[in-house]
Amino acid sequence: MPIITIEGPKVEDIQKKRDFVKEITKTTASYFNMPEESIIILIRENEPQNVSVGGRLIIDKNRK
Amino acid sequence: MPIITIEGPKVEDIQKKRDFVKEITKTTASYFNMPEESIIILIRENEPQNVSVGGRLIIDKNRK
Amino acid sequence: MPIITIEGPKVEDIQKKRDFVKEITKTTASYFNMPEESIIILIRENEPQNVSVGGRLIIDKNRK
Amino acid sequence: MPIITIEGPKVEDIQKKRDFVKEITKTTASYFNMPEESIIILIRENEPQNVSVGGRLIIDKNRK
Amino acid sequence: MPIITIEGPKVEDIQKKRDFVKEITKTTASYFNMPEESIIILIRENEPQNVSVGGRLIIDKNRK
Amino acid sequence: MPIITIEGPKVEDIQKKRDFVKEITKTTASYFNMPEESIIILIRENEPQNVSVGGRLIIDKNRK
Repeated sequence: MPIITIEGPKVEDIQKKRDFVKEITKTTASYFNMPEESIIILIRENEPQNVSVGGRLIIDKNRK
Repeated sequence: MPIITIEGPKVEDIQKKRDFVKEITKTTASYFNMPEESIIILIRENEPQNVSVGGRLIIDKNRK
Repeated sequence: MPIITIEGPKVEDIQKKRDFVKEITKTTASYFNMPEESIIILIRENEPQNVSVGGRLIIDKNRK
Repeated sequence: MPIITIEGPKVEDIQKKRDFVKEITKTTASYFNMPEESIIILIRENEPQNVSVGGRLIIDKNRK
Repeated sequence: MPIITIEGPKVEDIQKKRDFVKEITKTTASYFNMPEESIIILIRENEPQNVSVGGRLIIDKNRK
Repeated sequence: MPIITIEGPKVEDIQKKRDFVKEITKTTASYFNMPEESIIILIRENEPQNVSVGGRLIIDKNRK
């Protein structure tokens, strides 16, 4: 039942995503001492106009 | 004020969705002993490439 | 894999909680057409000093 | 590290969004007594068919 | 219906919390052009042993 | 800014927690190609009476 939610920018490379969830699952199963089958991961890919760091939208980060 | 968030695959049938939120709202209002008007539901429809169970993306579930 | 998160006040009666998750699970499994075993529910019981509706903390609701 | 998540309808006006995150960041940094640079905001724009208030989807709000 | 979730350290001063939710509610109602009564805020106060920044738990931040 | 939220049972061993967040941070930084300093992790330790799998509370799992 452990659930991992990942918030970040979009990653296009599916193979990279496959490897990522496999590794996160392994690490988490070991931490909780539970079977890998019980680990759920949700990836949320946020649009840069909907994320702000330090009061500034990501779409504006490269602006002067 | 109770808030219910539902994470799952996309459901296309709007009538099914209507019936679902009505039933969940009724059950939740009764559980908290609060009016149905106060119950908020958020449905998040996740893409199968962004959900992993047991270290495997949903898009790969039918692969050998 | 569907995940339901419930945010609301604390409910002390465990039997009520048992019946609630059973009913929510049944309704959700039917909505997604997935087995009940796959449905996970997380209940978050919020302290009244940490919830605000309309700009007012719940602990202050009965104040004039 | 404080993280603010905003759930609501879509707002098209980017300038309005810029002003909003700036103001929320300032208020939150002051509340926690932490630097503005540490404040992260995630905006989630929900589709009206995926939000229910009082057992009724937002898309049906104006229906009789 | 807009919902704001605030994740951060515990703040003991209730009056500060009152002022904070009032101000966040006002800013958010104005952004969405919706009544203040519809704005819900959830504050989550995280224990420093359950938050990590840069791979380091907050409880270890002052360690050498 | 990537944010990882981990929902699961309580883990008492702080050293295990330290190692876990370090490893998750490293894996996530590599996946997003972003510096480790930008990765935030929130651990939520859920009480077994507030989690249900398959319509059954975790506190009842060992019951017949």
